Amino acid sequence: MSKWQSERSIHEMLKDTPPLRDSSDSITSGTEAKFPTSRSMPFPSSYATPDLTQNGATATSTLIKSGSTKLDHFKNWSVSTYKCTKQLLYEKLGKSSRTVDTELEAQIEMLRETQRKYSNILRLSTLLATQLSAAATTQRALGEGFAELAQKSPELQNQFLYNADTQRSLTRNGETLLAALHFFNNALNTLVNKSMEDTLLTIRHYEAARVEYDAYRSEIEAGGGVPDSLVHSIDKQRRQYERLRDDSAVKLNLLHENRVKVMNKQLLLFHNAISAYFSGNNVALEAAVRHFSVPGAAPAPAPADQTHQ
Amino acid sequence: MSKWQSERSIHEMLKDTPPLRDSSDSITSGTEAKFPTSRSMPFPSSYATPDLTQNGATATSTLIKSGSTKLDHFKNWSVSTYKCTKQLLYEKLGKSSRTVDTELEAQIEMLRETQRKYSNILRLSTLLATQLSAAATTQRALGEGFAELAQKSPELQNQFLYNADTQRSLTRNGETLLAALHFFNNALNTLVNKSMEDTLLTIRHYEAARVEYDAYRSEIEAGGGVPDSLVHSIDKQRRQYERLRDDSAVKLNLLHENRVKVMNKQLLLFHNAISAYFSGNNVALEAAVRHFSVPGAAPAPAPADQTHQ
Repeated sequence: MSKWQSERSIHEMLKDTPPLRDSSDSITSGTEAKFPTSRSMPFPSSYATPDLTQNGATATSTLIKSGSTKLDHFKNWSVSTYKCTKQLLYEKLGKSSRTVDTELEAQIEMLRETQRKYSNILRLSTLLATQLSAAATTQRALGEGFAELAQKSPELQNQFLYNADTQRSLTRNGETLLAALHFFNNALNTLVNKSMEDTLLTIRHYEAARVEYDAYRSEIEAGGGVPDSLVHSIDKQRRQYERLRDDSAVKLNLLHENRVKVMNKQLLLFHNAISAYFSGNNVALEAAVRHFSVPGAAPAPAPADQTHQ
Repeated sequence: MSKWQSERSIHEMLKDTPPLRDSSDSITSGTEAKFPTSRSMPFPSSYATPDLTQNGATATSTLIKSGSTKLDHFKNWSVSTYKCTKQLLYEKLGKSSRTVDTELEAQIEMLRETQRKYSNILRLSTLLATQLSAAATTQRALGEGFAELAQKSPELQNQFLYNADTQRSLTRNGETLLAALHFFNNALNTLVNKSMEDTLLTIRHYEAARVEYDAYRSEIEAGGGVPDSLVHSIDKQRRQYERLRDDSAVKLNLLHENRVKVMNKQLLLFHNAISAYFSGNNVALEAAVRHFSVPGAAPAPAPADQTHQ
């Protein structure tokens, strides 16, 4: 879908837009309204015109009112969009080289895969919490049913009592386990949908800057006289690209440290809580929950309370 | 609902049926088609006309064809139905006495209450089996997810491996637990919906025979000349009532023994299986399942197999 959109945009672009040398003249004649508004590749915010909405006509009228600064801004953005789209098309056709930072790109690919896998774990552990919560509700009702039958069935009193006690104790421990699972799910959700997303946003900006830089670079490599303005532009693009590349690398490293720290803690909590619950060790379960400062976990009941109940 | 139906039947009956002395004449005139077909109280099969279907017209034509035997049969049934309905109405209004076997009626009331309570336990334990089965499916997927991440994350390999192992072991034990729960549910279902229902059917026949006997008794007590045929009838009704009362008492005792035996075994299985599963004691879980000859339980895997996997 994304690929198809991208290629369609390129064809429209090549059809609707006059050659590069003429573009500065034709911009003001209103062709900008025909520019496709759906792009598969996001561009750095500095290259986006804030007033360009999906309604090209409105955008045009706003532009005319706000004078030459915005027009220049829009002109730059259009030239840049055209160049970048051409560059992407040429890269796909193998007609143009691309700047590659192998190590960084491998890290980025790994982050995207990690995000997919962690999302899957988050989906499953959220589902598990829902299912165990429903089972705990049933077990509470079963405990009450057994307790009632124990009172009314002297012939099977002990058998019903044992079962009532077991179900009640499981229900109590179930609440502590669910508090631990919710804590795990919240932490994993923050990691996957906030921390990772934040780094991936910087990475998307970096990827756009890389294309833009390569577009200018290809233009120079295509030969012919290189005007001073283009030399100035390519320097600016290179600096922008390098800045975002470094930002991405820093964020990736910080994210890696954060992820390992968070997951180390959360996987231990998950394991300890699940193991303790499913081995009937309520002391260990409550210890795990207290150790990880899980909020909302039921405090351990005082032994005196249990006696009075 | 049942009470309302019963009262409505009585009113219709009193409206549609001529007085007792005239009933033998009017039967052949076709009023039988107006007899209400929905009754809240079942009568012994010996008093039911086999050909009386919900479609009164069909029933009438069948009756005319099959001659006087069936007509007599139907006549008796109609008289009997009228008498019994009158008796039930008079009992409700306090105008007629009823034969009471206090001990038996207390046992019957207790059986009905036990059936309701056991049905509730069956509903909850069936629901629990469904919920734990769903949780086991999620745990299997979680185990696979953790195992995959353990391979791809050297920095968190152990943490993922611990969790993968725990989830896998819980899934395996979960299958054994589910086999035990299904076994419990099947046994409870047979007890509640077959054994108890069978006894309750005899009890419903007994209750109908009691009403019929009381109806004849009330007629004699109402005074006036007692014809020999009525004396003969009341003897027959009394014997029928006593036979069904004894049958009910015997069945109630047999059911009690059967219920205590079945529940003793099943409550022990339920408790042992649940306790073993939720204390992570898979040896005890499998022992419980084997001890109670639960079919479909996964056999304990040979240690050699585990080593090879």
